[in-house]
Amino acid sequence: MNIKSYMHDVGKRARGAARLMACACTQAKNNALTGIAALIEARQGELLKANAADLQSGRMDRLDAALLERLELTPARVKAMADGLREIAALADPIGEVSELRFRPSGIQVGRMRVPLGVVGIIYESRPNVTADAAGLCLKSGNAAILRGGSEAVQSNLAIAACVREGLRQAGLPQDAVQVIETADRAAVGELLGMPEYVDVIVPRGGKGLIERVSREARMPVIKHLDGICHVYIDDRADLDKAVKVAFNAKTQRYGTCNTMECLLVAEDVARPVLDRLGPMFDEAGVEIRGCEKSCAILPGIKAATEQDYRTEYLAPIMSLRIVTGLDEAMDHIARYGSQHTDAIITEDVSRARRFLREVDSSSVMVNASTRFADGFEYGLGAEVGISTDKFHARGPVGLEGLTSQKYIVIGDGNIRK
Amino acid sequence: MNIKSYMHDVGKRARGAARLMACACTQAKNNALTGIAALIEARQGELLKANAADLQSGRMDRLDAALLERLELTPARVKAMADGLREIAALADPIGEVSELRFRPSGIQVGRMRVPLGVVGIIYESRPNVTADAAGLCLKSGNAAILRGGSEAVQSNLAIAACVREGLRQAGLPQDAVQVIETADRAAVGELLGMPEYVDVIVPRGGKGLIERVSREARMPVIKHLDGICHVYIDDRADLDKAVKVAFNAKTQRYGTCNTMECLLVAEDVARPVLDRLGPMFDEAGVEIRGCEKSCAILPGIKAATEQDYRTEYLAPIMSLRIVTGLDEAMDHIARYGSQHTDAIITEDVSRARRFLREVDSSSVMVNASTRFADGFEYGLGAEVGISTDKFHARGPVGLEGLTSQKYIVIGDGNIRK
Repeated sequence: MNIKSYMHDVGKRARGAARLMACACTQAKNNALTGIAALIEARQGELLKANAADLQSGRMDRLDAALLERLELTPARVKAMADGLREIAALADPIGEVSELRFRPSGIQVGRMRVPLGVVGIIYESRPNVTADAAGLCLKSGNAAILRGGSEAVQSNLAIAACVREGLRQAGLPQDAVQVIETADRAAVGELLGMPEYVDVIVPRGGKGLIERVSREARMPVIKHLDGICHVYIDDRADLDKAVKVAFNAKTQRYGTCNTMECLLVAEDVARPVLDRLGPMFDEAGVEIRGCEKSCAILPGIKAATEQDYRTEYLAPIMSLRIVTGLDEAMDHIARYGSQHTDAIITEDVSRARRFLREVDSSSVMVNASTRFADGFEYGLGAEVGISTDKFHARGPVGLEGLTSQKYIVIGDGNIRK
Repeated sequence: MNIKSYMHDVGKRARGAARLMACACTQAKNNALTGIAALIEARQGELLKANAADLQSGRMDRLDAALLERLELTPARVKAMADGLREIAALADPIGEVSELRFRPSGIQVGRMRVPLGVVGIIYESRPNVTADAAGLCLKSGNAAILRGGSEAVQSNLAIAACVREGLRQAGLPQDAVQVIETADRAAVGELLGMPEYVDVIVPRGGKGLIERVSREARMPVIKHLDGICHVYIDDRADLDKAVKVAFNAKTQRYGTCNTMECLLVAEDVARPVLDRLGPMFDEAGVEIRGCEKSCAILPGIKAATEQDYRTEYLAPIMSLRIVTGLDEAMDHIARYGSQHTDAIITEDVSRARRFLREVDSSSVMVNASTRFADGFEYGLGAEVGISTDKFHARGPVGLEGLTSQKYIVIGDGNIRK
């Protein structure tokens, strides 16, 4: 297979499909989504069989247990994929929405219409459910998608892609609106990143290595998030019950997610009562704490934190802890060590909450809530293709709207410029 | 001068100033804008003197007349700069605006807050008024700006920059919020494009060569427009009086602007009555028409158009002309030859207008209005740093809002994720 000509062919088909998808009516898109959901459920046996082949190859290639776990499809996971597509069908269609249509002194009306981005390339690792999620979001937002999943999941992804194509066909939409790259050859990614004429935006979902490579090589815009070094700051005017509950949840509700708290900041005036309660709770949960000098004095059992600890996204039952003088030192710490992902303050003080919301430069900024809420479903976006820590275009969880743009529309009655 | 260390110093100062500007209150920003306007007027003599020095060097370097004309400051142009800054002061402050704050089933409130992008780099050619405009827009939108004007205008730009710094100082804002690059060395641009750690977005304003270089080299997002190959399509259900008036205005109101019509498409059923009127009007205005075979039959005096003509942004009293069978062929022509800038349909037919608005994939799409309206002032944005023909982030004229992003804010009462 000539990868270059294969990928250019994929790109060309996607561009053609994108023009049709941009004009597709809401009903056709929803029919495709519910049709794909039904096909995925009806073909569960085939999907599980394809997945079993991937799992067997994976075991022969000695993939680690965590990767195999992510790769595995179960009847429950198949149902979750189908349900996810039905949820996307139930969301409002963002395309064609006109906002701010106003008369101008010249007599023209000027407004903005929401339109698709065009062709979205998504590069992800071994979770097959991403194939269905990403296809669904791109389809509903009127884009064409080029999906490149992990090579370990190729059989599973092709089986899901067959359902997607059939669903598109049944709904009268172009089958090339969603294409799954069929080759495991890594050169395909390089080609994809080098086709700005066919691909409008790239979304890498995966580890830091993948995201860095994509950012470096892509010749089109990238929607990405790098680290999630999330902070909770417990202010001295916090309600300590809320503080303890939120900080514990932000760390322990799940360890491996990007919105998990990695560093706890505590105002010194409340450090003792807070840590007297939180220390044993974290200890019992098996969370290792690496603290500053002052916190080691309060919790003698913990390790000392290094400078590097404050810059680390552990994704594990480990966290750093620092006692600060107050709000300003907390915000300075976040500006210096944070990754502009998600940061929270726990306080009952309105003025401090207001300052924190305004001044902390992160994609999600929270008051009295767990950082674990930074998520497309929790925010009501329905689903997300990723969380952006960039400021350009989309910031935070990227759902349907993040896959769209707005053009200007002008309606006149023969108006000319003087 | 060591350009690398100079530019990194500029970048570092800009990053520091950006953090302060993001939190600056509306009143301080408006005071700075009106203060700079007053200083520009008070120092008119100094500005004209600096400009005279630039003009003299320009004449010695044998710059062409058009460039010298753009470079020149006059008392009227100085006043226009000051007025422009006062207009920006009068616009609503976009920063801190919270929208869509809604309760979610989990009990948290989720909304979006508008925030600055951070540091904006603007690279432009010899118009000194861009220095004031760009500084004003960046300042009001809470960003820090690094401005790199054409080397021909360096004295004028530094004189304007001195007013900006003084205005910032008087308003209690960081003087480094607007920095003008002081060296004419072209290596400075290369350094600027290679500092993603200090510069969040680049806006190139100038010729195609500049924009292509910036797009190729920049390691951060770019807000740009390339060609403006704008179309007017006169449908067979057009009101011919409006059609003639709008098409003539779209071409002749100004020739050198990116929103000028470069190609006229006419439905064949109305081609004769339309061209019988427009032909002599364009002829009298000195506009050269290059037409398709059918149009040459109606207007025997015109030249034949080549394939290349349909791809050309003339920026001159030249236009191409093509007779099409109807709406579909017109939209196919625009998709094939257009530059996704601004395209208009002239029709009284609601269904065709609706299709054109939805299906034509350009940053501005118009019904019964001159393409010349595609402009930040005409759209009510107050001013623009440029017109984007990209789909990512901002599309069309980019004003204050295009220099901002939205972050998510979450307000809870001790909520945790289950």
